[in-house]
Amino acid sequence: MRNIKLIIEYDGTNYAGWQVQPNGVSIQETMETALGALLKGPVRLHSSGRTDAGVHARGMVATFSTDSMVPLRAFSDGLNSLLPPDIAVASSEEVPLEFHPRFDARGKHYRYSLYRGGRRSPLARLCAWHVRGELDLAAMREAAKLMVGEHDFASFRTAGCAAKTTVRRIDAVDVGEEGGFLRVDVRGSGFLRNMVRMMVGTLVEVGRGRRTPEAVALLLSHPGSSSAGPTAPPHGLCLEEVYY
Amino acid sequence: MRNIKLIIEYDGTNYAGWQVQPNGVSIQETMETALGALLKGPVRLHSSGRTDAGVHARGMVATFSTDSMVPLRAFSDGLNSLLPPDIAVASSEEVPLEFHPRFDARGKHYRYSLYRGGRRSPLARLCAWHVRGELDLAAMREAAKLMVGEHDFASFRTAGCAAKTTVRRIDAVDVGEEGGFLRVDVRGSGFLRNMVRMMVGTLVEVGRGRRTPEAVALLLSHPGSSSAGPTAPPHGLCLEEVYY
Repeated sequence: MRNIKLIIEYDGTNYAGWQVQPNGVSIQETMETALGALLKGPVRLHSSGRTDAGVHARGMVATFSTDSMVPLRAFSDGLNSLLPPDIAVASSEEVPLEFHPRFDARGKHYRYSLYRGGRRSPLARLCAWHVRGELDLAAMREAAKLMVGEHDFASFRTAGCAAKTTVRRIDAVDVGEEGGFLRVDVRGSGFLRNMVRMMVGTLVEVGRGRRTPEAVALLLSHPGSSSAGPTAPPHGLCLEEVYY
Repeated sequence: MRNIKLIIEYDGTNYAGWQVQPNGVSIQETMETALGALLKGPVRLHSSGRTDAGVHARGMVATFSTDSMVPLRAFSDGLNSLLPPDIAVASSEEVPLEFHPRFDARGKHYRYSLYRGGRRSPLARLCAWHVRGELDLAAMREAAKLMVGEHDFASFRTAGCAAKTTVRRIDAVDVGEEGGFLRVDVRGSGFLRNMVRMMVGTLVEVGRGRRTPEAVALLLSHPGSSSAGPTAPPHGLCLEEVYY
């Protein structure tokens, strides 16, 4: 038996998210169908986590086990010839049987992109949230800094989040400028459902002067007392990397 | 009578090009339909030039004349609410009646993007040409430099180009690296049909060692003696700006 680890890039625009869903086509089932065709039998993928509908990935990690002895290259170049243009395998490697992409993950890097132009941008529309008007970057960076560390992020999850504990360690929240875009790079040990998008939605409220950095500190010191947010839209988010 | 100048951004992926065509929907007709709905009557747009099917623009310039006294903002924000997500007006201004977007243009800036990853990229697939393998950047830059200046670009146009003279002045051809991408920025007084895409296709051949910079010099000193190219695919190209 071999355990194969894939790093997967996808444009999430036309998918109902990573996980197999009753409504709409998921990335997982598209991958499993292609793998099934390659290996001539059903294949089950285990991933480092899920992404919501419309969210992109440059570094989703998933594994599957197989008895097939086809060369590793079949699981990258071979698979890519069977996958649609908006999904591709970036790399494939054989890992120990006990490796699990979710339980062994040490952390993740997400990038959220905001487009800052005065008018909507056709070329940025599928991969950045359009946020008009002035944003106080200094205040956003101050609030971002407060999010770093180990905190109870109970205020930063949406209904339906099944996580038992809401304490997470955030290693970095960097707000950078790049051309007409803001990039919010979030690195941490793990994330609650919609947590990154609520962090970004909260930072934008701080940037607009609707919340103070102190109010963000209060959300973290009194978890669940009030709600963060709003939840930034999915298409600005990209899972860049999973660390092991 | 007012003469209105628009700067237009579009994702050319789903269009048959700028110009009204018998087959497929063009950007021009989509714009004219939206303007017609806004002004309640037929409107004819005059552009700085055409772009081929699949080519993008951040700075296409087009004008139209109207007797309507609606505020300028109607031709940006108002028009944007009538246009599809992949076309938008970036700005609108009133210009002298004698201004013509094509005849008055002093030059244009095109950017061509190449994706350099080992495997195809779902997130870059609509706006960059995927070129694998080693590229000799020094040789490409040497050949790019030879293209600068006033030359007869007869070898750098495709059949169907109706231009009477094939002499054009190129002000800059810069080959830059940005993350996993190469960006070829071309600035010049004017361009023959497919000229930028043939320049880029030729530079990639130089990068791969299939042509020497000297062979490029020969194409320019003996125009029409042999053919440049191949023509790089349309989706890597973007019309960035038109100068007046």
